[in-house]
Amino acid sequence: MGFRDECGVTGIYGVENAAALSYFALTSLQHRGQESAGIAVSDGTKIKLHKGMGLVSDVFEQGHFEALNGSIAVGHVRYATAGGRTIDNAQPFMNSFKNGSIALAHNGQLVNHTTLREMLEDHGSTFSSSSDSEVILKLIVRKYIENGGHLGTPNEEENSGELNQQRFVEAVVQTAKLIKGSFALCIMTENMLIGVRDPNGIRPLCIGLIGGGVTGAEPPLEGVASDEVRAQGEASPSYIITSESCAIDSVNGRFVRDVEPGEIVVINKDGLRSKKYAEDKKRTCIFEYVYFARPDSEIDGISVQEARYRMGEELAKESPVDADIVIGVPDSGLGAAQGYARASGVPYGMGIIKNKYIGRTFIAPTQKERENMVFVKLNAIRSDLEGKRVIVIDDSIVRGTTSRRLVQILRRAGAKEVHFRVSSPQVKFPCHLGIDTPSKNELISSNHELEEIRKEIGADSLAFISLEGMRKAFGADSFCKGCFNGEYPV
Amino acid sequence: MGFRDECGVTGIYGVENAAALSYFALTSLQHRGQESAGIAVSDGTKIKLHKGMGLVSDVFEQGHFEALNGSIAVGHVRYATAGGRTIDNAQPFMNSFKNGSIALAHNGQLVNHTTLREMLEDHGSTFSSSSDSEVILKLIVRKYIENGGHLGTPNEEENSGELNQQRFVEAVVQTAKLIKGSFALCIMTENMLIGVRDPNGIRPLCIGLIGGGVTGAEPPLEGVASDEVRAQGEASPSYIITSESCAIDSVNGRFVRDVEPGEIVVINKDGLRSKKYAEDKKRTCIFEYVYFARPDSEIDGISVQEARYRMGEELAKESPVDADIVIGVPDSGLGAAQGYARASGVPYGMGIIKNKYIGRTFIAPTQKERENMVFVKLNAIRSDLEGKRVIVIDDSIVRGTTSRRLVQILRRAGAKEVHFRVSSPQVKFPCHLGIDTPSKNELISSNHELEEIRKEIGADSLAFISLEGMRKAFGADSFCKGCFNGEYPV
Amino acid sequence: MGFRDECGVTGIYGVENAAALSYFALTSLQHRGQESAGIAVSDGTKIKLHKGMGLVSDVFEQGHFEALNGSIAVGHVRYATAGGRTIDNAQPFMNSFKNGSIALAHNGQLVNHTTLREMLEDHGSTFSSSSDSEVILKLIVRKYIENGGHLGTPNEEENSGELNQQRFVEAVVQTAKLIKGSFALCIMTENMLIGVRDPNGIRPLCIGLIGGGVTGAEPPLEGVASDEVRAQGEASPSYIITSESCAIDSVNGRFVRDVEPGEIVVINKDGLRSKKYAEDKKRTCIFEYVYFARPDSEIDGISVQEARYRMGEELAKESPVDADIVIGVPDSGLGAAQGYARASGVPYGMGIIKNKYIGRTFIAPTQKERENMVFVKLNAIRSDLEGKRVIVIDDSIVRGTTSRRLVQILRRAGAKEVHFRVSSPQVKFPCHLGIDTPSKNELISSNHELEEIRKEIGADSLAFISLEGMRKAFGADSFCKGCFNGEYPV
Amino acid sequence: MGFRDECGVTGIYGVENAAALSYFALTSLQHRGQESAGIAVSDGTKIKLHKGMGLVSDVFEQGHFEALNGSIAVGHVRYATAGGRTIDNAQPFMNSFKNGSIALAHNGQLVNHTTLREMLEDHGSTFSSSSDSEVILKLIVRKYIENGGHLGTPNEEENSGELNQQRFVEAVVQTAKLIKGSFALCIMTENMLIGVRDPNGIRPLCIGLIGGGVTGAEPPLEGVASDEVRAQGEASPSYIITSESCAIDSVNGRFVRDVEPGEIVVINKDGLRSKKYAEDKKRTCIFEYVYFARPDSEIDGISVQEARYRMGEELAKESPVDADIVIGVPDSGLGAAQGYARASGVPYGMGIIKNKYIGRTFIAPTQKERENMVFVKLNAIRSDLEGKRVIVIDDSIVRGTTSRRLVQILRRAGAKEVHFRVSSPQVKFPCHLGIDTPSKNELISSNHELEEIRKEIGADSLAFISLEGMRKAFGADSFCKGCFNGEYPV
Repeated sequence: MGFRDECGVTGIYGVENAAALSYFALTSLQHRGQESAGIAVSDGTKIKLHKGMGLVSDVFEQGHFEALNGSIAVGHVRYATAGGRTIDNAQPFMNSFKNGSIALAHNGQLVNHTTLREMLEDHGSTFSSSSDSEVILKLIVRKYIENGGHLGTPNEEENSGELNQQRFVEAVVQTAKLIKGSFALCIMTENMLIGVRDPNGIRPLCIGLIGGGVTGAEPPLEGVASDEVRAQGEASPSYIITSESCAIDSVNGRFVRDVEPGEIVVINKDGLRSKKYAEDKKRTCIFEYVYFARPDSEIDGISVQEARYRMGEELAKESPVDADIVIGVPDSGLGAAQGYARASGVPYGMGIIKNKYIGRTFIAPTQKERENMVFVKLNAIRSDLEGKRVIVIDDSIVRGTTSRRLVQILRRAGAKEVHFRVSSPQVKFPCHLGIDTPSKNELISSNHELEEIRKEIGADSLAFISLEGMRKAFGADSFCKGCFNGEYPV
Repeated sequence: MGFRDECGVTGIYGVENAAALSYFALTSLQHRGQESAGIAVSDGTKIKLHKGMGLVSDVFEQGHFEALNGSIAVGHVRYATAGGRTIDNAQPFMNSFKNGSIALAHNGQLVNHTTLREMLEDHGSTFSSSSDSEVILKLIVRKYIENGGHLGTPNEEENSGELNQQRFVEAVVQTAKLIKGSFALCIMTENMLIGVRDPNGIRPLCIGLIGGGVTGAEPPLEGVASDEVRAQGEASPSYIITSESCAIDSVNGRFVRDVEPGEIVVINKDGLRSKKYAEDKKRTCIFEYVYFARPDSEIDGISVQEARYRMGEELAKESPVDADIVIGVPDSGLGAAQGYARASGVPYGMGIIKNKYIGRTFIAPTQKERENMVFVKLNAIRSDLEGKRVIVIDDSIVRGTTSRRLVQILRRAGAKEVHFRVSSPQVKFPCHLGIDTPSKNELISSNHELEEIRKEIGADSLAFISLEGMRKAFGADSFCKGCFNGEYPV
Repeated sequence: MGFRDECGVTGIYGVENAAALSYFALTSLQHRGQESAGIAVSDGTKIKLHKGMGLVSDVFEQGHFEALNGSIAVGHVRYATAGGRTIDNAQPFMNSFKNGSIALAHNGQLVNHTTLREMLEDHGSTFSSSSDSEVILKLIVRKYIENGGHLGTPNEEENSGELNQQRFVEAVVQTAKLIKGSFALCIMTENMLIGVRDPNGIRPLCIGLIGGGVTGAEPPLEGVASDEVRAQGEASPSYIITSESCAIDSVNGRFVRDVEPGEIVVINKDGLRSKKYAEDKKRTCIFEYVYFARPDSEIDGISVQEARYRMGEELAKESPVDADIVIGVPDSGLGAAQGYARASGVPYGMGIIKNKYIGRTFIAPTQKERENMVFVKLNAIRSDLEGKRVIVIDDSIVRGTTSRRLVQILRRAGAKEVHFRVSSPQVKFPCHLGIDTPSKNELISSNHELEEIRKEIGADSLAFISLEGMRKAFGADSFCKGCFNGEYPV
Repeated sequence: MGFRDECGVTGIYGVENAAALSYFALTSLQHRGQESAGIAVSDGTKIKLHKGMGLVSDVFEQGHFEALNGSIAVGHVRYATAGGRTIDNAQPFMNSFKNGSIALAHNGQLVNHTTLREMLEDHGSTFSSSSDSEVILKLIVRKYIENGGHLGTPNEEENSGELNQQRFVEAVVQTAKLIKGSFALCIMTENMLIGVRDPNGIRPLCIGLIGGGVTGAEPPLEGVASDEVRAQGEASPSYIITSESCAIDSVNGRFVRDVEPGEIVVINKDGLRSKKYAEDKKRTCIFEYVYFARPDSEIDGISVQEARYRMGEELAKESPVDADIVIGVPDSGLGAAQGYARASGVPYGMGIIKNKYIGRTFIAPTQKERENMVFVKLNAIRSDLEGKRVIVIDDSIVRGTTSRRLVQILRRAGAKEVHFRVSSPQVKFPCHLGIDTPSKNELISSNHELEEIRKEIGADSLAFISLEGMRKAFGADSFCKGCFNGEYPV
C-alpha cells in the first residue's frame, strides 16, 4: 500500500464480440490502473479505436460497442502519475503505416527509450505523446519497413497492399531485442494478435483459451497445455493474452500458460505459434505478488494468494510476537495476515474495513477536512481489537504516513498493543521498471533505521520480512529485487 | 446477498462544517443505499437542501459545500427499487410551515402509511412524492399546528415568528406514537436536531459525540455514557445521530450509545435530552447483523462483526462437515466464514474475490454477455480450492440464482466438493418493514424443501442456521423474525 | 436587453405523445428561461414527472420519453435568479392529495403570496420550496377539499375514489380569485387540463389545436374560433395551451385564440369549456412585446414583430436624426430597427452580430478576461459602420453598462456618430410582477437625467420612446406600465 | 444552407494568456465547426495540448487554462462528417521530433494526400489518424530532417538540441509547395508561429495585432499595414493569425491584412516576416462569402456582409418579381435579403425565426416526431407574411428538402405567393476542396431543370443568381467556381 503499478493489458483473438470481452477483461484488470482505458478492434480490414480518461465503465457506453465490431482486439487500463494524465498518453496506441495498421498496449517501462526515441527521430519519426510505448510501436514499424528493402525503395511485395505477417513478426522480434526494461505487450494488426514479454519477465503476461465465444453453458476447452495450441476439428480456437489470469476467468476462458520471459506468441488464422527471441532470465517483479495482482491470479506458476499466505507464514516464523489477533490491511495485506495466523496460531480477524465507495470523485470539502479523509477510507472493528494485543500485516511501507494513521486508528479502537509486520522487505530504492515509487529521499526505509521507523509510525514493534524469508516463501529466487537492494536486472 | 436495505440516515449538531461531516458520514453509510443522496443544513435561520441521484461522491461537488453552510444537518442515502428511482423520492424531505422549517431523513418502512396519508389528505395535505417518509413529515407538522390551538385560529405565541421547540418535540412524539412500522428518523428544524427510533427498534440508530469539530489532533471527549449528556465548561458538545456507528468513526467522533427503541432524543443549544415515548419492545431486524450493516459497526450493544463470527460458530456446531477449507462470500459472508473456521478447525481461506469496480454504470454490451457478467463480478481463487472439499458461507439465499452461479464458479476452479452453509435461517416470507425482498413465490425457501434447494444450486450439501442457533449466537431473542416465520412485531 | 422574464408554460391535451410535443413546445419557449425544465404527464390514472436543471435538451434524453407516456401534459421552462437556482424550485410542481393528483406550471409572480402562504400554513400546509407557484397549487387543493365538506369530515362522494372535476374547476376558480399578481397557469389532473390567466392578463397564454397528433401531412383543423370548441365527427380534438403562439407552431398546431384576462379554460373528454371568473382588466406587460416574446408569436391579437416595427416607427417620428444607417441590437432590437428604418427612410443594415454559441458553460478563464467577454458575445460589422452616422436601436436600458460597451464596439468599428434610440420608455421602477429587474438604485433611469445617461453610455444622442408614442404604436393603452411610472395594476 | 465548411483555425503569438485568447477566438469561429475543439500552447520550452469532442465551451473548463500556460498557441474547431467523428481526428495535431515539437491546425482539404501519405509511409512514417492534416505535419518534419543532412547521419548543428528556425521555415515552404488542394494552416513550434495559405487562397486566413495583451482599455495599435510589421519601442507586438477577422475582434485585436494566397508568414521574437512561396492564383471559395463566414468578417478585402448585400442586389436586378415583402433564411440569407430589398424597393421584413437553442443534444423522441423537428427549428412570422406575396432569399439549394419544408412553413403562415431566390448559382458538382457536399446524384441542381426544382420545392417562382451576376456583385472573378461549373483550380 503506498505505490502503484502502471497498467493492465489484454488481447483477444477469434471471438465475434472481441470488444465486449475486452471490456470484461479490462474491468478485471481495473485494479492495475484507473486513469484511462481503451480498446482497439479489427474487423479484418480496419482497426478502430476508442479510449478515454477514467474507469473502464466510464469510458465505454453501449453505443461504443456497435462501432467497435470485430474479432481481434487489444485493450489497456492505465495508471498515470499526475504529469501524464492526458488523453495523448492513453493506450492502446494505434498507427497506420505502409500496408497496414498496428495497435499496441504496453505494461512496463523502458530504460533505453530516450536513446531509441532519438534514434527514431534521427530517421524522421515523430511522436504524438511522451510515452515510451509509442517508441515501441514506431520501432516495430521501422523494422518492418527496413526488412522490406531500402528505405524509399519499396520492393514489389510491399506494394501488393497486404501486410507481410512473417516480416511483421520479425520486426516485433527485432524490436523486442532492442528495447530494454520491462514490457508485457499486446500488439495487433488487422489479422494478427501478438504477445511479447521481456526477457526478465518483469511484468506478467499469460495465455487463455476462450471456448466457442462466451456462453456460460459451453465448457472451456479441455486439455490444452502444450506450447503449440491448435484447433481440433473445424473451428479455430479463440484466445486471450492478458496481464493476469483473473481476466481470463472474467471471460469464462481457461488459463493455458504464462507467456515466458523472452517469448513472443503469435496468433492468427493458423493458430498460435511461439518463439523464444531471448534467453529466459526470469526476474519477475516481486510486488506483483505482494500487492499489484489480484489474489485470484496465478503468475508464472505461482498463485498470488498462495504467495501471500506463504509470505505471512515466513513472517510469522521470522518475527513472532505474543498477541491476541492478527489482522491484515485490505485488500492486499489480507492474504499475508491469514498466512501469519496459520503459522503462528494467533487467531485471524478482520479488524479493518476499507470503504469501497471512495473513488476518484471523492473530495474533501475543505483543506481542514482533507487530513481526516483517512477516517472515511479506513476504519477499525472495535470488537476485534479492544483490549487486545494486535498484529497488523501490511504489504509494504513506503513513506510511512499511512502506516502512522493506521496505528492511530487501531489504538482509537482500543488496541492495547500494535505490532506492525510487513510482508515485503524494506523498500530503499526507487523502481525504474514500471512502479510509481517516490524519490529515494521520500522512502522512509531509505534513510531511517528500523527503530526510527517504528517510532515514527507509533507501533509497539515493527518487522519486515527478510530477503531470505521471501526466497523461502517462494521456494525460488527468480525475482527482481531492485527496490530492496538496488540491483536491477536491466 | 440477494436483497437489500433501504437507507442510511445521519444528523449532525453543533459543528461549523455540518455539511462536510455529513458528506463523510453518508459515504460511510453508502453501502445502505446508492440510488440517491442528500444533505439539508441549517445556519440557524434557514434550511438549505441539496440532493440528487447517484453516489454521495457523484451528488456532491466542491461548490455545494459553500452553499450548504451551517452547523446542523441531516443527510440520507437511499436504496430504491426500480419503480421509485426518481428525484421526487430522494431524501431528506424538507418542508417549511407556519413558523419554521423541517427536514427529515427516514430509514424504515411504515405499515400504516396509507391510512395516515388518507387521514392527512382528508385534512387537506398534499404530497409531492409516493414516499411514506413524506407522510411522517406532514404528520409532525399537523400535530405541531394542532397543538397550537384550533386550526385556522393561531394563538398569539404561534405568531411570535419562532418555532416553539417544546411543542415541536411534542408533535414528533405524537407522530411517533401514530406511525406503525420501522423507523429510524433524523429530523431537524432551524435550531434543533431530533432522533427517533421505533418502539421495536427495527432499524438501528445511535448517538456519537464529535470532539470540538473535526480535527484529527483533538481527542474525542472522554467519559460520556449517561443518558443525559451536557456540555462541561464553556463549549457545547457536538453530536452525531446516525444509522451505524461506523459513521461516527468516519467523522472522528466517539460512540456514546444507541438510541433506544421507543426513544426520542432532542439536541439543541441546551444539550441532549431524552424521552421514552413508548415501551421498548426491542425487535431489531436480524439482517442488520447478517448483512446490511458494516462489520465495524456496533448495534444495540452487539458488534456486527462479532455477531457474524458467532453465527458462523453456531453454524459450525449445527452443520459440521469434513472439509479442507472454509471460505465466505464477500463482503457480508466473510465474518461468518471466519467464525465457522474457528469453531470447526477447518482452515479459513479467501477463496472468492469480488470486483469492486463494478458500479451502476457497468453494462453488458449485449444480451448475450449479460448472463456472463457474473464472471466479472465474482471469481474464485484456484489455489485455495483446487482438489479441495470446500465449505462456502453466504449470508442468505433469496432466489437461489446467485448461489447456483457461485457453486459453478467454485467447481470451475477445481473444488472437489462444495458444501453450502447459510448464516441466516431460510427466508420464507417477504418483509414489510424496510427490506426489498421479492414476492413470496420468488423466495426459493418459500416453496422448496431443503433438498430441492440443494439440487437447484448444485451443492454437495446445504444447511441454514436454525432459529435456535441464531438465538444462541446472540445470546438473546429480541429480533424481528418475520421473514423466517411470518410473525411480524407490527 | 438587460433584464429577463421568468418562465414559459405549456399544456397538452389529447395526443398520444404528449411529453414529446411538450418537449418541442418547451424548446420553442426556451428563450423565456434556461435554468430548469420539466414535464409532467398523465396516462389517465397517474401523473409522472421529470424535471432538472439546464436547457430542455439537457434535461430530457431519449429514455425519459418512454417513462413519460400519456396524453395529457404540462411543461415549464424557468428563468431563475441566483438565489433560487435549485431543483426544489424547478417546475412543474406536482402534488397528490385526497382522490387525485395535480401538476401545475406557472409563469408570473404573486404579490400576495406571503399572506396566502401564511393562511395556508395556519391551516397546516407545508411547502417544499420557496416558490409562490407552490402556494397556488396548495390553495387549489385546499379549496377543493373545503368545497367537499367540512375538513376532517369527508363526504361520501369524496370517498368514491375519483376526483370530482366540477368541484376541482370550482377550486381553481376560487383560487384564481384569491391570488393577486401576474399568473398564466397550466394545471392538470389525471384527466383534465386547465389554463388560467390573471384578470390583468399580465403574462400571455393562448390556445391552439393540434390536428390529429403531429404529422406534417395532416392539415391543422379549420375554422375554429368560437369560445366553445368541440369535436366534430368521431375524434376529439387535441389542444395545446401555452405562453406563446410560437410553441403552437412548433407542434404543427393551429392558433385558436388567447386565453382572455380573467378567463379559465377547461379541457377534458367533453372538449373545451371556458369561464370568465373575473372582469377583464387587460394590462399586458408591455415588455412581452418589447423583448420577452419571440417575434413569431402573437399576443392578445397583436403580432410581436409587428409591435416592434411600430415602436420603431414611432421612435423614428419622435426622435429623428440625420444618419447613414439604422441597426438593431440582436435579437429583440431588430424589429424596432427595421421599423425605424421604414419610417425614417434611413437604410437598415445588420451592423451587429451576436455569438449564438455562448451558453451557460462559457467561461472567462481568468478575471482579467472577464471584462473582455463582451467582445466575444457581440461584434460590429465594420463595412456597415465605418465612417457612418449610425442609429442603433436597443429595446431597453437597465443599468447602462451593456449600452456603454456597445457604443464602444460601434466606434471601434469606425462609426462616426452613434445615435442611441430605445424602443421602450425609461425604466424607473422595479417590477413586482415577474420581471427580474435590479433594485431601484441600480436602474440608471431611476436616478439620472437623460443627458447624464447619454454621457454615461458615450452616445452622440439618446432618446427613449415616450409613453404616448408607445400608446400610438399599439393603438391601445391596455398595458402595465409599472416600471415606467410606478403605477401597477395590482 | 445545406452543406457546411470544415474548420476554423487560429494562432496566437506573444501574449501571456495565449490559451485564453485562443478560447475566445475559437468561440468566434465556432460556426465553422462544432464537432471538436483543441488548443496547443507553448511556454517556450514545451508544447501542451488539450482537445476534445464538442463545442469549445464544452471542451474547455477553468482547470484546463492553468495547465495550458504559455504565450504561443494554435487552436482549431472542426466540422466532421459522420465517419470521422472520433477524437483521433480532432485537431490541432501535435508531434515531437528530433530537436523540437510541432503543433498544426488545418482548414481545407488536400487532393494529393493519398500519394503523399504513401510516399511518407514508404519512408517509414506512421499515422495515428485518417486526416490529411496529419500528412502535412509529417511532411514538414520529414523535410526539416532531410534538409539537415542525410537521414540517419545527423549533423552537428542538429545535435545542439535546438530547432533551427530557418531550416524549419524552409521545410514548411517545401511542404506547402508539395501539397495540393486547399489549406489555411496555423503551425507552431516551441518558439515560433507560422501561417500558410495555399496558392489559390481557397480558405481564408488573416493577420491581426493584439495591443499589449487583452485589456479593453488599451487601444489596439495604430497604423500597422505594411508587409513587415515590427515592434516599435520596447515591447514586441503580439499577433493573431486566424480564419476570419471576427476572431481578431473577439480578442480586441486589430485586423492588419489577409495572408495572401501562396504566402507564408513567420512570427518569432524578431517580429513578423513574410515570404511568397508560390504565385498568387487567387481562387477564394465563393461560399465563404455566401454562407461559411460570419457577416462581421472581411476576407481578401471584401466584407462578407457587404458581399451578401451585393449578391442580393444583383439577384434583384436579374430576377425581379412583384411582391410585398422580402425575407431571408437565417442566418446566412439575411444579408442577401436586405440587399435584394434595397435594390428592388420591396420592403424588407424578418419573416422567419430560427430557434437558436437547438444544439447537438436536441433529439426527436421517436421516429414519428423526427420529421416534424423542422417546425421547432424554423418558424414563420405570420404578421409579416399573411396574405402577402413573399420573396424569400436563401444562400443555396443543395438537396432541396429543406427548401420544400420552408415553403410549406411560409404558406402555413398565410403567404399568398412564395418567390424563392437563391444568392448563389446552382450547385451541380461536389466539392473536393473542403466543403462537405453530398454526392452528385443527391445535388438537386445536378439532375433537375430549374422548373423541376421549382415544382419540387413548391415555390411560385424560383431563380438563382447567375455566374455573371456573382462576378458583378464582387467586381472580380477571382473565385473557385468548381461546384457550379466543375472547373476546379487544383
